[in-house]
Amino acid sequence: MSTSSGTNEREEGLTFQPKFDASGLVTCVATDATSGEVLMVAHMNDEALRRTIASGQAWYFSRSRNALWCKGESSGQTQRVVEMRMDCDQDAVWIRVEQVGAACHTGRRSCFYRAVSGGEGGAQLTLVDAERLFDPKEIYRK
Amino acid sequence: MSTSSGTNEREEGLTFQPKFDASGLVTCVATDATSGEVLMVAHMNDEALRRTIASGQAWYFSRSRNALWCKGESSGQTQRVVEMRMDCDQDAVWIRVEQVGAACHTGRRSCFYRAVSGGEGGAQLTLVDAERLFDPKEIYRK
Repeated sequence: MSTSSGTNEREEGLTFQPKFDASGLVTCVATDATSGEVLMVAHMNDEALRRTIASGQAWYFSRSRNALWCKGESSGQTQRVVEMRMDCDQDAVWIRVEQVGAACHTGRRSCFYRAVSGGEGGAQLTLVDAERLFDPKEIYRK
Repeated sequence: MSTSSGTNEREEGLTFQPKFDASGLVTCVATDATSGEVLMVAHMNDEALRRTIASGQAWYFSRSRNALWCKGESSGQTQRVVEMRMDCDQDAVWIRVEQVGAACHTGRRSCFYRAVSGGEGGAQLTLVDAERLFDPKEIYRK
């Protein structure tokens, strides 16, 4: 355990001081404010954090597209932030959201639509939520 | 949207094929199986995933200590995995756990014990769960 005053202030203080990784990002977990279900895990940079806090709508930073994005800007499936929390070392954010429609780009409510189970031949996945709330081909067509 | 068959199989298939980052890790979110509260965000490497699936106890990989660890091995605050799920692109894992005591090394039930609020002078934190279920100095003493 580090007991430096910097660590102590970050963990015990009330100063908002996100600990960004080498790419300038923190991890963000979005859960459904009503059901508690984990909807998605994504990343925020400093600007995404600022915009989320200021607007009450979830903004993220896409590593694959290297771009800031407002959740739902293409799909209409927005996330209104009910509560935002910071973890002990301030490198992860938890937002409880009111999700319009589906959080996942595949059209499912949550990105976590498959369960993992063990077995003789190794781990396998089982579909636990097959329902698509929208058709990705329609939503994301060019 | 990538529409390569590799992406499609990873997103739509039932083959367990975690997408590890450059450091060989996936992100893991642990929630309380009863309350739905997010307890912690941590990382797993291939071995931590295997051991978690095989044992039903949460194993992680510590980036700061560069070591595999079984949650609770020092503190006794173990996590029994009730369900494990994989996200769409298989770079994040969600485990619903029965948490013994506290998940956070500070002694709090959850690592997310502070809420973020906006304001004129920028974002601030508010303590939402001050209670320590153990004394870190006692638990982690050398």
